Amino acid sequence: MKEVNVKKKKKLYEGKAKIVYETDNDDLYIQEFKDDATAFDGQKKGKIKSKGHVNNQVSAHLFQYLEGYHVPTHFVQPHSDNSMIIRKLEMIPVEVVMRNIATGSVVKKYGVEEGLELSHPILEFYLKDDERHDPMINENHIVAFGHATVDEVKQIERYAQKINAVLKDYFFRRNLLLVDFKLEFGRNKAGKIRLADEISPDTCRLWDSETKEKLDKDRFRQDLGGVEEAYQEVLSRIVTS
Amino acid sequence: MKEVNVKKKKKLYEGKAKIVYETDNDDLYIQEFKDDATAFDGQKKGKIKSKGHVNNQVSAHLFQYLEGYHVPTHFVQPHSDNSMIIRKLEMIPVEVVMRNIATGSVVKKYGVEEGLELSHPILEFYLKDDERHDPMINENHIVAFGHATVDEVKQIERYAQKINAVLKDYFFRRNLLLVDFKLEFGRNKAGKIRLADEISPDTCRLWDSETKEKLDKDRFRQDLGGVEEAYQEVLSRIVTS
Repeated sequence: MKEVNVKKKKKLYEGKAKIVYETDNDDLYIQEFKDDATAFDGQKKGKIKSKGHVNNQVSAHLFQYLEGYHVPTHFVQPHSDNSMIIRKLEMIPVEVVMRNIATGSVVKKYGVEEGLELSHPILEFYLKDDERHDPMINENHIVAFGHATVDEVKQIERYAQKINAVLKDYFFRRNLLLVDFKLEFGRNKAGKIRLADEISPDTCRLWDSETKEKLDKDRFRQDLGGVEEAYQEVLSRIVTS
Repeated sequence: MKEVNVKKKKKLYEGKAKIVYETDNDDLYIQEFKDDATAFDGQKKGKIKSKGHVNNQVSAHLFQYLEGYHVPTHFVQPHSDNSMIIRKLEMIPVEVVMRNIATGSVVKKYGVEEGLELSHPILEFYLKDDERHDPMINENHIVAFGHATVDEVKQIERYAQKINAVLKDYFFRRNLLLVDFKLEFGRNKAGKIRLADEISPDTCRLWDSETKEKLDKDRFRQDLGGVEEAYQEVLSRIVTS
């Protein structure tokens, strides 16, 4: 796609970590990343300096990398330090979580050992529904509730598996373990599924592969300190290598 | 299989609604159905007169009916009024729930309309883990936690779909709506998957297709009265038609 020029118009949506703006092009939005951080269903709130910048740069980089592996995304081009131009999609209200190592909710809920390397990656679906605290669902609920067709769910599963394989390797070459991550998808006007949202230390758990040090939002969730430095470290391992 | 004669030996396991006994035949157990009823994770307790008898008769009848549709089960033959001879299986610690109409937990958890006929049946998996209150899982957790292989999970899904199709029709001809039901599976010595546990008004939600009257354990859960009569009604619609 050749370089596009868009003008930012009115705010369409403001979430916990991002703002989406309409533009003078009907097919494009601007997605701006905030420094605001929340955790535990919005109960914990804070700011992480330069997070918007890091998440924008990391996401832009990874979206372009994945496009090279034939994973279509909503990314069009960078817009500013903390924003990107994205394609307008009809979002599917489902969070897709992929886990390679057991930590977080999977340990609490099922009693598996913290840090266990899973012999088989675990893909989970959660309904995006703040009021109901994003309950876990499966592919049958998604279809029965009319959020996506059987074929769309299969396509999403295939993309999630591929993204996991590609990114696990990508991060490992940068001495980072991709522990787990969250994805969101939408469909374009032609009805094709594309990866949306972001891929960043807000939505991925990344551990240093040697020291197992956490370099992601868990530092904020668990008050581990060095939050800003962790985000910068991820960015520097990605853009300089 | 020709008529077998077994001697009841020591109690192997006593659950909330059933007791399993060893027999003098290494490959066979006796499964006895109790009148005891529990609900809400064991918090509500009671007795339903003749429930053991009804559940044994209904289960025996349905297991034999399903065998006719090439669904292998653990059922061997009746043993007494409230017990049956079953094959010894290595149980898979997963509850398989199939839903045709939205009611119960699916309404509470996802806010779908009570009584909604689902355009697409919903199959759910729950980990059998009393301590963790049987959390919902999916096929990836089952494989990653080592409870079954990918092929076994697919086989279980295929059986559950077939059992739903066969039983929905079967009940409908008896003026009963099969709203939802729970199944459990195990593997035999040859490693083949077989349907186990029971199929009864304890494990199926059954509504009269005209009046929508509940004829299952929800009468006990919700203190609707006429519990014993509902169980007898289901039995009579099955054995006399």
